Amino acid sequence: MSLNLSLNLATVRTQWKLPQAAEAAARHGFAGVAPWREMVEETGIAESARIFKANGMRVTGYCRGGLFGAGGRKDLKAAIDDNKRMIDEAAAIAAEGIVVIGGGLAPESRDLAGARAMFVEGLAAVLPYARACRIPLALEPMHPMYAADRGCIPTLREMLDIADVLGNDGLGIAIDTYHVWWDPELSTQIARAGQRIIAHHICDWLVPTRHMLTD
Amino acid sequence: MSLNLSLNLATVRTQWKLPQAAEAAARHGFAGVAPWREMVEETGIAESARIFKANGMRVTGYCRGGLFGAGGRKDLKAAIDDNKRMIDEAAAIAAEGIVVIGGGLAPESRDLAGARAMFVEGLAAVLPYARACRIPLALEPMHPMYAADRGCIPTLREMLDIADVLGNDGLGIAIDTYHVWWDPELSTQIARAGQRIIAHHICDWLVPTRHMLTD
Repeated sequence: MSLNLSLNLATVRTQWKLPQAAEAAARHGFAGVAPWREMVEETGIAESARIFKANGMRVTGYCRGGLFGAGGRKDLKAAIDDNKRMIDEAAAIAAEGIVVIGGGLAPESRDLAGARAMFVEGLAAVLPYARACRIPLALEPMHPMYAADRGCIPTLREMLDIADVLGNDGLGIAIDTYHVWWDPELSTQIARAGQRIIAHHICDWLVPTRHMLTD
Repeated sequence: MSLNLSLNLATVRTQWKLPQAAEAAARHGFAGVAPWREMVEETGIAESARIFKANGMRVTGYCRGGLFGAGGRKDLKAAIDDNKRMIDEAAAIAAEGIVVIGGGLAPESRDLAGARAMFVEGLAAVLPYARACRIPLALEPMHPMYAADRGCIPTLREMLDIADVLGNDGLGIAIDTYHVWWDPELSTQIARAGQRIIAHHICDWLVPTRHMLTD
């Protein structure tokens, strides 16, 4: 069976390392995988690239960049450099893009507006390099319950505003149903995003939600 | 010490019934209380009214009405009738308003747009009665993590849109920091709400959030 789907390797990382996961994805007919950086680093970048190619797997998205303000202003430069390294890695494994999230607040910080401003600043600093390397950055809004600790940009509207402000070239949008299903503006903003949507994740929402990450 | 604050009785309902809670609020200098319907019904409406008055407590908001679509279309009429009864009760205890939330989806339903439409329909049906009884309805957006099971209207923008559509007369806005802190449009929509804000709750957000309701 051939599925025009990509398997996000986070969903199988407790069972498998990258080589087994890529092979299983191929065996089950997936067209691609979305690997996480920790898994790629564990296996090695060149070896990961070889495995994806050997299994005929597209690498639809490399997870996850962004998070520019998560360490506060003192760590912003390091976060920018780290995102550039991630672009190199993405190019090396022939990834079609990098999934970029807002990141949380710095420890002890409550300055959500400041975290958002650092996200824009960091993204602006990285974008020329991403364009030069032809690695699109897929901006992913995250559910508002993560706004403090993981994704300070919670809505599709806000991510599109940021992409508009930065000129869109080299940027795309990643949509995960889990993060955006609740949004009254969802259909309006999806229509606005149009062809800018370069990745979409499918995930259900459980009622009741007992764990905010693993449910 | 006199505090120009109101104690939401949900915060003390495991320790106290309504009489003890009202007395404690008075003793600690609160200017008012926001009682929940279950507590008022348990103590009795006339007796609750007497207790609030005897303790010199304002009744700043009666919790919680709305939830029009939570039982699906078959229960919408019953939900409307129940909200009207709640208006009678609010008048009897001299409440300054009723806190109104979106309510969740009907069991097994995934029709969020339908739930929102029922909320507007139910609210429109109740509003003339609320106006006649001079009981303002304070519309409270709830955090998007509750959109499926408790509050299908998650943003201040959407609640204000609904209030605008229904004409505002007899309607106000209730803002709880816990529900809206993440919203990129928060300051814009607060400015838009202006004098329509007739209730505000203060609550912190814990990182990590271990329980979506009681944290």
